[in-house]
Amino acid sequence: MRFVSLPLVIALGGVAAVPATPITAAPSADILGFTPASSRVEREWETRFRAMPNPTRMRADMKRLSAYPHHVGSPYDKANAEWLLTQFKDAGWDAHIEQFDVLFPTPKERKLEMIAPTRFVAKLTEPPVPGDPTTYQTAQQLPPYNAYSIDGDVTGPLVYVNYGIPSDYDELARRGISVKGAIVIARYGRSWRGVKPKIAGEHGAIGCIIYSDPADDGYTQDDTFPVGPARAPNSVQRGSVMEMTLYQGDPLTPGVGATKDAKRLALKDVKVFTKIPVLPIGYADAKPLLSAITGEVAPSDWRGALPITYKIGPGAARVHLIVKSNWDIKPVYDVIGRLTGSTQPDQLVIRANHHDAWVNGADDPISGLVAELEEMRALGALKKQGWSPKRTIIYAAWDGEEPAVLGSAEWAETHAEDLTQHAVAYLNSDNTGRGYLSVSGSHILEKFINGVAGDITDPETGATLQRRMRASRELRAPAARRDTASKSGDIQIGALGSGSDYTTFLQHLGIPSMDFGFHGEGGRGSYHSAYDDFYWYTHFSDSSFVYGRALAQTVGTAMMRLADADVIPYDYTDLAETVKGYAGELKRLVSGMADDAAKHNREIRDSTFMLTTDPRYPMAAPTIEADVPKIDFSPLDSAIARLSDAANKYNTTFTNTLDNAKTSGDFATLNMRLIKSEHTLTSDAGLPGRPWFKHLLYAPGVNTGYGVKTIPAVREAIEAKDWALARTEITRVSAALSAEAALVTQATAELAN
Amino acid sequence: MRFVSLPLVIALGGVAAVPATPITAAPSADILGFTPASSRVEREWETRFRAMPNPTRMRADMKRLSAYPHHVGSPYDKANAEWLLTQFKDAGWDAHIEQFDVLFPTPKERKLEMIAPTRFVAKLTEPPVPGDPTTYQTAQQLPPYNAYSIDGDVTGPLVYVNYGIPSDYDELARRGISVKGAIVIARYGRSWRGVKPKIAGEHGAIGCIIYSDPADDGYTQDDTFPVGPARAPNSVQRGSVMEMTLYQGDPLTPGVGATKDAKRLALKDVKVFTKIPVLPIGYADAKPLLSAITGEVAPSDWRGALPITYKIGPGAARVHLIVKSNWDIKPVYDVIGRLTGSTQPDQLVIRANHHDAWVNGADDPISGLVAELEEMRALGALKKQGWSPKRTIIYAAWDGEEPAVLGSAEWAETHAEDLTQHAVAYLNSDNTGRGYLSVSGSHILEKFINGVAGDITDPETGATLQRRMRASRELRAPAARRDTASKSGDIQIGALGSGSDYTTFLQHLGIPSMDFGFHGEGGRGSYHSAYDDFYWYTHFSDSSFVYGRALAQTVGTAMMRLADADVIPYDYTDLAETVKGYAGELKRLVSGMADDAAKHNREIRDSTFMLTTDPRYPMAAPTIEADVPKIDFSPLDSAIARLSDAANKYNTTFTNTLDNAKTSGDFATLNMRLIKSEHTLTSDAGLPGRPWFKHLLYAPGVNTGYGVKTIPAVREAIEAKDWALARTEITRVSAALSAEAALVTQATAELAN
Repeated sequence: MRFVSLPLVIALGGVAAVPATPITAAPSADILGFTPASSRVEREWETRFRAMPNPTRMRADMKRLSAYPHHVGSPYDKANAEWLLTQFKDAGWDAHIEQFDVLFPTPKERKLEMIAPTRFVAKLTEPPVPGDPTTYQTAQQLPPYNAYSIDGDVTGPLVYVNYGIPSDYDELARRGISVKGAIVIARYGRSWRGVKPKIAGEHGAIGCIIYSDPADDGYTQDDTFPVGPARAPNSVQRGSVMEMTLYQGDPLTPGVGATKDAKRLALKDVKVFTKIPVLPIGYADAKPLLSAITGEVAPSDWRGALPITYKIGPGAARVHLIVKSNWDIKPVYDVIGRLTGSTQPDQLVIRANHHDAWVNGADDPISGLVAELEEMRALGALKKQGWSPKRTIIYAAWDGEEPAVLGSAEWAETHAEDLTQHAVAYLNSDNTGRGYLSVSGSHILEKFINGVAGDITDPETGATLQRRMRASRELRAPAARRDTASKSGDIQIGALGSGSDYTTFLQHLGIPSMDFGFHGEGGRGSYHSAYDDFYWYTHFSDSSFVYGRALAQTVGTAMMRLADADVIPYDYTDLAETVKGYAGELKRLVSGMADDAAKHNREIRDSTFMLTTDPRYPMAAPTIEADVPKIDFSPLDSAIARLSDAANKYNTTFTNTLDNAKTSGDFATLNMRLIKSEHTLTSDAGLPGRPWFKHLLYAPGVNTGYGVKTIPAVREAIEAKDWALARTEITRVSAALSAEAALVTQATAELAN
Repeated sequence: MRFVSLPLVIALGGVAAVPATPITAAPSADILGFTPASSRVEREWETRFRAMPNPTRMRADMKRLSAYPHHVGSPYDKANAEWLLTQFKDAGWDAHIEQFDVLFPTPKERKLEMIAPTRFVAKLTEPPVPGDPTTYQTAQQLPPYNAYSIDGDVTGPLVYVNYGIPSDYDELARRGISVKGAIVIARYGRSWRGVKPKIAGEHGAIGCIIYSDPADDGYTQDDTFPVGPARAPNSVQRGSVMEMTLYQGDPLTPGVGATKDAKRLALKDVKVFTKIPVLPIGYADAKPLLSAITGEVAPSDWRGALPITYKIGPGAARVHLIVKSNWDIKPVYDVIGRLTGSTQPDQLVIRANHHDAWVNGADDPISGLVAELEEMRALGALKKQGWSPKRTIIYAAWDGEEPAVLGSAEWAETHAEDLTQHAVAYLNSDNTGRGYLSVSGSHILEKFINGVAGDITDPETGATLQRRMRASRELRAPAARRDTASKSGDIQIGALGSGSDYTTFLQHLGIPSMDFGFHGEGGRGSYHSAYDDFYWYTHFSDSSFVYGRALAQTVGTAMMRLADADVIPYDYTDLAETVKGYAGELKRLVSGMADDAAKHNREIRDSTFMLTTDPRYPMAAPTIEADVPKIDFSPLDSAIARLSDAANKYNTTFTNTLDNAKTSGDFATLNMRLIKSEHTLTSDAGLPGRPWFKHLLYAPGVNTGYGVKTIPAVREAIEAKDWALARTEITRVSAALSAEAALVTQATAELAN
């Protein structure tokens, strides 16, 4: 489901300075959370493990799993699940398929025609490509559509709204242009697609078309498929438009598992469908529509790469849009495998990737799944060789991720109590390519994953993954910044928003989560189209599967360490430093808004707007904004200071205790306390207006979708200028951070005993 | 000749805060440089003057002057000069035509064909447009070409070099791509066109094609002509590519007037022709060429708006380019009118606009010329009514600006001695449109021109021009900046580089100069094409000529004040503040380069480049750079402090003296000293490697062309990392600023007597 853009991947965090060392570094000494003795044993098993993942088998698995379209409810989706189950069982896992029954609308009628000033009927189809066999499976393909769009048959003038994000509507308002009664056309990008019809509807639009502009995703990027990887003119990005910032998973069973007997909402009571019909199109279909729009020329940063003059409208162009779906309940098949732990079997370490796709989905999700399968096989083999993990390991292949993380959400909701109490971590992957390890997630795992990334070799350079990540960030750091490493020297990881199966685990249940993939070197342009297939992936992405192997080595190593560690390797200093950074951002957000409001009001008083309006293009008269009040961040600052202090003390004790332990220790009580760490950062009441989201540090943004908002309740209250709410939420977040500090202090005491 | 891009116009300087006042302000009290008594008289004459310029007549004049192509050497160029002479004489001016004979090459053969991988022959023509009569005058048009390109017949692989500026070649070098033996294709923009073949040649290219990309100048901007103003696919930007950063004017007579008997260089000894053949094309001709280039995909900021994947090459595409010219001597006809001054007739105030065009040139230059004609007529009428300016006023209409500011340079070189000793100011205009007064020039005139702009009414808003300029800058100022006005409260004006007829006056002779025009509200896209004609201008630019009238009011008022002032209204505080700003820029330039070099070297030591290279797209290995040494700017700082101190003292005395004068004063000696002010900022030896350019504060950049480099000798030495030269030039500039301080101190003493 996820679409990672390069600049995001490499801009996730800061840079730490390193001394000049040989590129291929020796592995570091003790592993975080292990005693010296257990560390030695662990390294031996890991060495065996990392030799096992096999690119040839990954290629064969990809070919098999992407051989036919395998969306939710399709025959091949079920066939894949059954085949996967066989793989688990063959590797010695205790495995089964867990089925849920979920609402999954599929296209019944799709029509988009321009009725004025000329007539044009959009093709809405992705033609087969000679030489690429699976593109001919048009009968089995799910045609391009946006799942969970409401049904509609609307006609209206066409208005171009750029990316359809809130600031685009501010631009329209400045020009006095309304989308009321209009059908908007927005380009993909800058926000999650489901946010576009939501915001359009809030502004009075009656329909929404979303297209891929070649400036963002097409010939501007590279040669188009099949010559190159880039999106061809008729290639369409499918995708869900469910309002997933409200809740995720099956729309009919929010908060509970969609089991056979679950109580289901009536369709009419569901709040997460769009309010207006939505349809995605390719740029071949978009060009005649956009070029027919008359009216004012679009602002310069609204202009894409079609060979036309982008205009806003409304004007001559009128369109007729029909979107109708079959609103059926469909089965999803989650494949679940288990290796039961030896000494702490009730503690769970979970790893998953989804198996369903929009069409053939070689990149999304099979590229990540084939890596997971290799881990699964290797761990099964290690078990047979005598490896005996302390904790229980669960490997899963989710169904139904594409429509709404259906399989993972329903499974996690069904097993919520067990997971909340016992899950040590949830590690996710999805599509993966070439380049740099992209890892985001819970910051209590930041130090841990730095340790893992420092022990895995990049297949292209021979350096460790950590070295290469650091180099990438160093290269992009401003020249004036010298050696401004994080205090710990760890590479900072990004926070998780939404867009893949970790969401329910992290944001609904408060389980420490991480998401992995390789990105940054080429290989984009097939996302959610029928061209995301074996041909595309093996020509333009990780064609030799060496990065797939590196992914298996990375996540598999992380799983082994989490399952084997004496003390669960959470670290709170990086968390404290990260949250301190977020607090700084919030303060700058407020002061920036204050500056903006002051400037805006000064400009009204000085007639600046009036004096800078071109009378040939009249602008609406702006109005005075309320001043931005002072916001007291001191409760937050104090809580962060407490956490930071507790974290430092814990670290000292942790290091002393483990370094001096003679043998592998038994820290069962401590570990059960530590497992509460992430959950302590959540609130049972959840975020304002969306109680399903319980994490107080990370959430998808209401107006950004996938994009994360950190300390979301405070940040979104500030953005909405709800100052009273901002103050309340600062209190709530501060309390959670203080509770975390208390937990850490108690853990320190237990560790010292 | 000039091409003003919107962001430049509005980013020329800082913003001063103003109290909230009514939009239409009353004129300020005394005029700078006038006693209270003479100020009152002056205002009466000015009021009469400003009522005279007539939009209807300007429209008729434009139609007449742009009726046929009127480039240098064409019959209509001569006819226009003769008609202009009549206008001067009819208005009561002492006028004549001054002829020079200059080298002006015109096309003999132009051919551009792609010979591989497919064959394509570029059209190189601008088709007539139904409804626009003058576009049918193809027989009289000068076809698209770049004047002063050397002759050549070359064949080679095609390489795309983006804008062809130095940093683009750095990008190529990082990729190990050479243009040696290749023909480069560069897009217009970011540098003056003549710099593109110069830099290409320095890197070994054998030919250069320059095209207009629709992202910068075409359908991306607006509807294309004739539906809208934007450049149509076959529209071509002509223009000179003479190496005008070496010297300007006739290539055969550097530094002296190209009179009949002047000593002329042989063609083979001329250094200012390009080293490789150059040809400009439109984007219709460019598209097949660019889309045939194979090889690596161009970096993201190299990609324009053609519907293709931009690639660098060299690869499959090979082209054959022929450029041959008739290297003829042609006459240029400067029209010179004079109103002799009453009390200080040897002091000269000069104002001009050119009359030649590349084709019909309604915008460039006739839009500015018709404003000048209205000033000329109005001043003639005032003279008849009894107005008697103290100083001699010269109004000129130059020929041959487009090829190389031929008419103005030859006239100024011919009369150099008189001008250097007696010219108070040179005021220039060129093409003009709608929007904001754009004024750049000598900073000793900054305060003066603020006074003028504060007394002229903007035709669209009723505010003063100054108010509107201030509003535009305020709007674009960052929100965090509050009330950071220049100390004086004056709107800062930009410095002059090159691109119109002021160059010789300011940069060769050291005469205070200013350049005027209205820009910023629409009306671009015909620049140097056959479509810059009466139809285009009257449909898409200042169609009602109200901004033309405002230009006449502005420059005419400035001319009257400069001719009538008791004390020439130079001010040195704004100069000192401006130069202080430049010194700060130079310091930041050095520290930025030091940071960059340190980062670059650290990245080599840390293997950062090696670790971030995609092995599928190998990069060349970077090499260690020399560290940037400390540069001592204290001599410059001291000189600026001296100037600032002298300027403040002068200002106090100046205000006291004039405010308390009972009648109009006689300050002849003082004025003759003040006239040396700008010249004191020059050096007879000129800039390093280009002695024709004598101004130490302002020059066109060697690698930017039109774009100004302030304190150019120091700045370009730093950019070239010639630290010894930078230190020498700091000394030279400091000496000139100290001399200026001494002059101002002496003037203060004279004023106090």
